[in-house]
Amino acid sequence: MANHKITLQPANQTVEVPTGSLVAEAIQRAGLEITQPCGGQGRCGRCAVFVQGDGARRRSTLRLSAEDLDSGYALACQTVVEGDLTVTIPEQERIERRLVTDKTAKTIQVPFPYEPGLQGVRAFRLYLQEPSLQDNKDDLGRLHAALAAAGYPAADVPLTLVRRLGSVLRECDWSPWVVLEVEAWNRPHGPARLIDVATDPIEPVAVAIDIGTTTVSAYLVDLTTGEVLGSSAEYNGQIQCGEDVISRIIYAGRDGGLAELGQRVRQTIAELLERLQKRTGVAPSQIYRATVAGNTTMIHLFLGLPPASIRMAPYIPTVNLPAPILAHEIELGIHPLASVDCLPGVASYVGSDITAGVLACGLSETDLLSLFIDVGTNGEIVLGTHDWQVACACSAGPAFEGAGVVNGMRATEGAIEEVWVSSGTLEPTWRVIGGGKPRGICGSGLISLLAELFVTGVIDRGGNVKLDLDTPRVREGAHGPEYVIAWASETSTGSDLALTKVDVDNLLRAKAAIFAGFSVLATSVGVRLEDVQQVLVGGSFGKYINVEKAIQIGLLPDLPWDRFKFLGNTAVLGTYRALLSRDERDRLGRIARSMTYLELSADNSFYDAFTAALFLPHTEIARFPSVASIWERQAGGETQGGAA
Amino acid sequence: MANHKITLQPANQTVEVPTGSLVAEAIQRAGLEITQPCGGQGRCGRCAVFVQGDGARRRSTLRLSAEDLDSGYALACQTVVEGDLTVTIPEQERIERRLVTDKTAKTIQVPFPYEPGLQGVRAFRLYLQEPSLQDNKDDLGRLHAALAAAGYPAADVPLTLVRRLGSVLRECDWSPWVVLEVEAWNRPHGPARLIDVATDPIEPVAVAIDIGTTTVSAYLVDLTTGEVLGSSAEYNGQIQCGEDVISRIIYAGRDGGLAELGQRVRQTIAELLERLQKRTGVAPSQIYRATVAGNTTMIHLFLGLPPASIRMAPYIPTVNLPAPILAHEIELGIHPLASVDCLPGVASYVGSDITAGVLACGLSETDLLSLFIDVGTNGEIVLGTHDWQVACACSAGPAFEGAGVVNGMRATEGAIEEVWVSSGTLEPTWRVIGGGKPRGICGSGLISLLAELFVTGVIDRGGNVKLDLDTPRVREGAHGPEYVIAWASETSTGSDLALTKVDVDNLLRAKAAIFAGFSVLATSVGVRLEDVQQVLVGGSFGKYINVEKAIQIGLLPDLPWDRFKFLGNTAVLGTYRALLSRDERDRLGRIARSMTYLELSADNSFYDAFTAALFLPHTEIARFPSVASIWERQAGGETQGGAA
Repeated sequence: MANHKITLQPANQTVEVPTGSLVAEAIQRAGLEITQPCGGQGRCGRCAVFVQGDGARRRSTLRLSAEDLDSGYALACQTVVEGDLTVTIPEQERIERRLVTDKTAKTIQVPFPYEPGLQGVRAFRLYLQEPSLQDNKDDLGRLHAALAAAGYPAADVPLTLVRRLGSVLRECDWSPWVVLEVEAWNRPHGPARLIDVATDPIEPVAVAIDIGTTTVSAYLVDLTTGEVLGSSAEYNGQIQCGEDVISRIIYAGRDGGLAELGQRVRQTIAELLERLQKRTGVAPSQIYRATVAGNTTMIHLFLGLPPASIRMAPYIPTVNLPAPILAHEIELGIHPLASVDCLPGVASYVGSDITAGVLACGLSETDLLSLFIDVGTNGEIVLGTHDWQVACACSAGPAFEGAGVVNGMRATEGAIEEVWVSSGTLEPTWRVIGGGKPRGICGSGLISLLAELFVTGVIDRGGNVKLDLDTPRVREGAHGPEYVIAWASETSTGSDLALTKVDVDNLLRAKAAIFAGFSVLATSVGVRLEDVQQVLVGGSFGKYINVEKAIQIGLLPDLPWDRFKFLGNTAVLGTYRALLSRDERDRLGRIARSMTYLELSADNSFYDAFTAALFLPHTEIARFPSVASIWERQAGGETQGGAA
Repeated sequence: MANHKITLQPANQTVEVPTGSLVAEAIQRAGLEITQPCGGQGRCGRCAVFVQGDGARRRSTLRLSAEDLDSGYALACQTVVEGDLTVTIPEQERIERRLVTDKTAKTIQVPFPYEPGLQGVRAFRLYLQEPSLQDNKDDLGRLHAALAAAGYPAADVPLTLVRRLGSVLRECDWSPWVVLEVEAWNRPHGPARLIDVATDPIEPVAVAIDIGTTTVSAYLVDLTTGEVLGSSAEYNGQIQCGEDVISRIIYAGRDGGLAELGQRVRQTIAELLERLQKRTGVAPSQIYRATVAGNTTMIHLFLGLPPASIRMAPYIPTVNLPAPILAHEIELGIHPLASVDCLPGVASYVGSDITAGVLACGLSETDLLSLFIDVGTNGEIVLGTHDWQVACACSAGPAFEGAGVVNGMRATEGAIEEVWVSSGTLEPTWRVIGGGKPRGICGSGLISLLAELFVTGVIDRGGNVKLDLDTPRVREGAHGPEYVIAWASETSTGSDLALTKVDVDNLLRAKAAIFAGFSVLATSVGVRLEDVQQVLVGGSFGKYINVEKAIQIGLLPDLPWDRFKFLGNTAVLGTYRALLSRDERDRLGRIARSMTYLELSADNSFYDAFTAALFLPHTEIARFPSVASIWERQAGGETQGGAA
């Protein structure tokens, strides 16, 4: 097969690839980064590159305008190499966190009185009898005798520790320090297991990790006091391979894809632990236990389990309740014999991030009828009380993460995060993360903008941009009707920032999916959404959205604002609780086992509820009394809107 | 540091090594083989090479004559490189087995009625419920449900199998074949463990392995019938690094030595399994259990445990009772999840080859006062009945393996294995393994020769060669007085083959150590050797020695010949029994726990017994009535001999 030379700019590198390769593969082969949020399906349009030369065959794509294609742009994931090319890669979106991800111990309280050892890991010193010609028991037998005397008969001593045992015992005069897992959480009365044996004292530390599709968070926990020594968060390194779980599952199906995804998330965790080491002095090798939550796909990728069946009917994951494993089995860079407890999930689309969230938000302990929602890259919803819980997942799509929206972006520097539109002039004002010129619009900005355009009448209840308004901001653009939020001169990209009809439709589908989830859940158990006594919002997304505006677009149900509680990352908080105490861990296990999962794709009423929610705020505007009054006041008597 | 060029002949290779390297290291760096039976201590003289050039500094050695040194010979392990050299390596002793090592299934009987599954490994098919949108339990949960229905609740399913589970279940229409370890032998009521899951039927096979210092033996066992599908034996690849356990322990202390020794024995096992695969069609990956015996040092090296403490007072091993491990933990090339059961030993010098031997020879089940001896590279002795057993180990040294004797060699092609000396002419006749001209003398030949020289009066009771005899065969040689067994013209080496006074002394020390062991053991429990009702001789060594001659030199006690039973490799036979049945495995555990170990180095009477046994056949010739009568008849009235 012929090879072709690809010259990559601005890096000025060349790489040879065979006929039929994708431009994206050539870029990766050169070791350069190219963002592929949709996993290389040509859906998201983020991997657009500028191509010169005749050797490129472009597949059709909806993500580039005819104009863009004419001027030489192409999607790297959809362009096949058939000859020599020069490819110019635009600057990739840099990840700059806006979250204050690094907290100190002081900001996170130990949530309940802590008893060391009750989470299952103990460190203490043993005093062994020294051998003699008359007492020639072997080293391991001597260790077992001392462990038995300490209350741990027949403990498991892994071979790697036996290999060190002879020299450690002789160096420390037969009085070693040991770290013991008192019992595995899934073998309540099973034998203890030795995790470490050393000549010097050991201070055992653990880590609670939440693997989000977008963000990975970690708490470093002192197992002596239960305190959080430090916390840290970082974007999941898998984002390069797809922005939502479906894209990641597709990527995992490629040759080497599963291994790469595993490697990437381990690398992200390694970076978090390294950062925590710098701040606390605790080396990753001192971490003797890890407790991990994540959605079911994230946990599959973390454990190296092929996730393919998750996206194929009947949507069966390989594992909802993973058994504890040892860190070395997945090459996690903590103590190799530390047990890694991946918390139990419920179904393919309700994972342990949700069960941990339910534990953290208190839903399973309250008498109040509660709605827990965690809108991350996916939207998961739990309705219930301490007696019962029912859950579902809505594939909202990544619109609220800024993907699938022409000028959408993640909540990083340069993103518009809040918008106000004047009802008189229809001119917008906005707030940008980092304060500079805007580059795009992030999730909270999109909700805010959509709500403002709706209540000011720029778009109607069906999401149509009213082109007849007397403002240059509404126009017919390359992708159809749009509203210009910032002119080229005001942006850092030098192009207009606009929200198009197509974008609005994507946002409507996202919010409709979530609201339909609420409705179907409530109907399935015979309660009304109006009766919900508290709405517990987890996920970092929730921390930045404006309740009023989220209600105005019909994303959240129209309840008094004081019923909403924004709890931040409930997944990592619940994981921390499960790490601290066996009782909490058991409670989480009960939540996972007892929660009823409603598979929406098997529920005929979901499609109806979804369709009904595709309007602003909803087909039945009576369900949103607070919105109805504003909208009627602001936009006048267009009571019919676009609703059927 | 300066580098020097070493030219190696006859391979005509060159290699560069820094000043201070040993010639042996240069040879190994070039990837060439050099035999170092003593582990590079300059004791055995086997690594002699011919050195040209000024850059060699020879350390002193007793193993080369002044003449040899003058003519350019040097020990590779004792010669330091200080300049460019040319080194000629003589042809190394080739290992040619004389044992019929490869037996067919027919020759080894299943020793008792066999019940499949009772050794702990079962293969069967499971029938799982197929999932649907209404029944969306995860794959692993479905597997657990089916295992629980089959009587195995809460089984351990290793992560590597979970990784394959999703695709296997879907390929086999939810009816996989599984291999299950019903329980670990050390956790009688613990959970079962999945070893394999597959789309096709599985015939489970196991392997029983005896790791001898010299020879490694393996039985491939059909777990459905209990039959031996094939057996095979091969020299232990560690021999290159030292011929006895002490040399190996020293070698293990070198940089990388422990890893190399582990790798070498695994390589030997891999060769055995490959040979068995050729004959039986069973691939190593189908082996779902391994049961392993060996002396304590061999087991330490096999498991990667540093054996250093075994040779230092108070002679404490790291492990006598190893816990079961998984094959992948020691990179053993069978199914990676197969459990590897290293059988329990008693002490540093009484390992599981002996406990397995006791199980195989029936000592622990008999009313008869029995003596079990296994003279391999070391000599281990057990005295007892079904009620009690007491054991000791004698460091006989490798003289009976042909090492430490000028013309000694292993029992391979070209070795004299039996000798007769005419009492009239004092001329010898001999039998050579393979039938050609002799190259040296192996263990059984040495015993035979020593007995013949003694009863014909060529040597006296103190082992002194009588130089005044009227035969050219006795003479003063380079190493002192000697008897020439074969003239240069009769040998394949072109040199005279002789037994020297030094050799005789080495043989006397070896046999005295073993006999002293018998005596001290008997005394320690208050019985007389004459009361022993059966002598059970294990080890391949025993198969070729002549009882009469072994008694004549005082190696074996002077009992009626019908009390001796030669059982062959009892270690692998006992291992096979322990593999076949949990009852036998438990019995072996009891033998190991209840056997009393007598540490001879802590026993003052041993030295006296040893000294008393340094004569032919013994200081107190009355202990050998059958020998006394022959000797008096043949050699006349020299009743005083050399005895004190």
